[in-house]
Amino acid sequence: MNAAATRWRVSETRRVEYELCNVADVFDPACDALLADGRRAGGRRFVVVDEVVLRHHGARLAAYFAQHGVTARIVPLPGGEGGKTMETWQHLLRTLDEFPIHRRDEPILAIGGGVLTDVVGFAASSYRRGVPHIKVPTTLMGYVDAAVGIKTAINFNGRKNRLGSFEPPRRVLLDRRLLRTLPPRHLRNGVCEIVKLAVIKDAALFILLERHGAASIAGAFQGEAGGAILDRAIDDMLQELAPNLFEDELARVADFGHTFSYGLETRHEDHLLHGEAVLLDILVSVAIAHARGLLADAAAARILALVERLGLAPPLELLDATLMWQSLLDRVEHRNGAQRVPLPTAVGTGVFVNDIRRGELADAIATLQCWTRPTHDRIAEC
Amino acid sequence: MNAAATRWRVSETRRVEYELCNVADVFDPACDALLADGRRAGGRRFVVVDEVVLRHHGARLAAYFAQHGVTARIVPLPGGEGGKTMETWQHLLRTLDEFPIHRRDEPILAIGGGVLTDVVGFAASSYRRGVPHIKVPTTLMGYVDAAVGIKTAINFNGRKNRLGSFEPPRRVLLDRRLLRTLPPRHLRNGVCEIVKLAVIKDAALFILLERHGAASIAGAFQGEAGGAILDRAIDDMLQELAPNLFEDELARVADFGHTFSYGLETRHEDHLLHGEAVLLDILVSVAIAHARGLLADAAAARILALVERLGLAPPLELLDATLMWQSLLDRVEHRNGAQRVPLPTAVGTGVFVNDIRRGELADAIATLQCWTRPTHDRIAEC
Repeated sequence: MNAAATRWRVSETRRVEYELCNVADVFDPACDALLADGRRAGGRRFVVVDEVVLRHHGARLAAYFAQHGVTARIVPLPGGEGGKTMETWQHLLRTLDEFPIHRRDEPILAIGGGVLTDVVGFAASSYRRGVPHIKVPTTLMGYVDAAVGIKTAINFNGRKNRLGSFEPPRRVLLDRRLLRTLPPRHLRNGVCEIVKLAVIKDAALFILLERHGAASIAGAFQGEAGGAILDRAIDDMLQELAPNLFEDELARVADFGHTFSYGLETRHEDHLLHGEAVLLDILVSVAIAHARGLLADAAAARILALVERLGLAPPLELLDATLMWQSLLDRVEHRNGAQRVPLPTAVGTGVFVNDIRRGELADAIATLQCWTRPTHDRIAEC
Repeated sequence: MNAAATRWRVSETRRVEYELCNVADVFDPACDALLADGRRAGGRRFVVVDEVVLRHHGARLAAYFAQHGVTARIVPLPGGEGGKTMETWQHLLRTLDEFPIHRRDEPILAIGGGVLTDVVGFAASSYRRGVPHIKVPTTLMGYVDAAVGIKTAINFNGRKNRLGSFEPPRRVLLDRRLLRTLPPRHLRNGVCEIVKLAVIKDAALFILLERHGAASIAGAFQGEAGGAILDRAIDDMLQELAPNLFEDELARVADFGHTFSYGLETRHEDHLLHGEAVLLDILVSVAIAHARGLLADAAAARILALVERLGLAPPLELLDATLMWQSLLDRVEHRNGAQRVPLPTAVGTGVFVNDIRRGELADAIATLQCWTRPTHDRIAEC
């Protein structure tokens, strides 16, 4: 701080640090990762758990805290986008306020999917201007995407993620055994974010998906190849997120698939998962890139083939040029006045564009519908 | 970010920078400080203004934006603690969401007292995970206290400032001409925070208050001595706040007067201003320090004499040992398990203690009541 007669400048730096680690069985009392960064015997923990996860693991969870002499308040939350509301956030904060925790050494635990870790993260960041939290993702979407970064959110005023914060977790515990009980649709939902990274950033991950993706989905990512895919996806996400944690740079590779999806998932909240909307956006982006001559026939064909091989079955009938154009306009506000849309230029790399026209969206939708007709050489014929 | 097979560490630093500056007439179109850090001609601004301030300055404010070609949405808010609610915060966010602004270069303007800048700051920090804001304090409490740091807040669940964030403003514009229309009680309210700094940290400021405090209050701090007091108070606050912006250190000199006041202002929300509650806390702390032998008779007498000379008239009848003990217990949660209460050891300096007993509070109240009886040598006789 430099003081002058009539002008003061505050200039400080803040360190942001957190760790992500693979753990073999997070609810095993011999594993003390859940109690990291805080008071153990005699301590207290506010533990928010997805209600399905609680059904599978509630008894072990209660035993875990009992064995460590920690007083836990277990708060169940329903999963799914419907829980990402102002009401859920206030419910958490009121419940927390009636279960006092120390401000610094009794981190809140968020055990669930991306919606749950987003809303608990926002509660943690708002309560007393921020208390620490630890994330334990239990869905593939949470595991490879929501839990990796520092973004928290709730939906507001009919808009996705309109409120939130950048709040680093203290720690992220990755236990892929928790994925074993996921329904196949939710595995595929998370895979769409892995496909995103593969297409726009990581050709080697793309090859891994081509070779082992389908089997990994079938085996809930419990095998060796599944683990390699997950580790690589997290590596890739962190390479993108870590140098730009607070989004000082608004042209973000990780935003691939997140421009038109915003409107789609808002309109179809009840029957379209986040990853499914992202996949639709990826495919539209591929068609736009192809029409612009940015992406070769062979690359576009390879991406479509991967989507098919993974059984992702994108619901193309939901594409709507008007809705997607509105979504792009909202993203322009969010990206401070420019489109900054990532488009792939080959498998594993891309560019940002700022000049997508409304007409390109309708054309891209028509092209996609042609590409996915069952013909022999689809790309060349459309 | 260091990648390993099963463990990733994110470790980054974030720069926090903002400026406070004295401005001579913030609504003069020749002064472009209000439009700093953003788009000018063709730009948009969401401007939240205290409704009393708007009555005094609304026409000039509208002319200001018109002259600069900026589209402004002026949102009036009532002043006072009653406005620091979840409802006000949501109202602001909904209104903001319907007046689109760019995420980065159209800072929200918060023109009002400490309550207003706190709630607008929290709205700015929550909207799209944070959009920039600029604070223009219009009360003395805002000027020397609320607007200086980076804390935002709303009340929740019957508790003061239970939700909020640490959100640096982009800029703080200090125009003491705005203080001219403040009612005397609100001038005295802000003076209590200046007294706080003088007693616990700055003997020279204490002398300034002894010499020029009463006249400065009478003249709404428009004179030279008034300006010197304000500048020195801001210097002092920044010395305390800047190295500890995020309260990594929980033993805070600036928390002097903010331990027992918390319960008092919660119970008496309708008729006790923040500074008035802080002054009561200061006096109780002085009595405790004196009883412990930490503070000499002469120093205690000098502090009481200053309070009297400034006409602050603390409502001692509101002191309540039970309420204040509860308040201390809540602060212990907030300060992560220890009291960390600052007590003065002389005019201008102090220590932190962690062992205040319940009985000391009742004794301190009785002592204060004795001290303030109109007798000749009050301190020695009580």
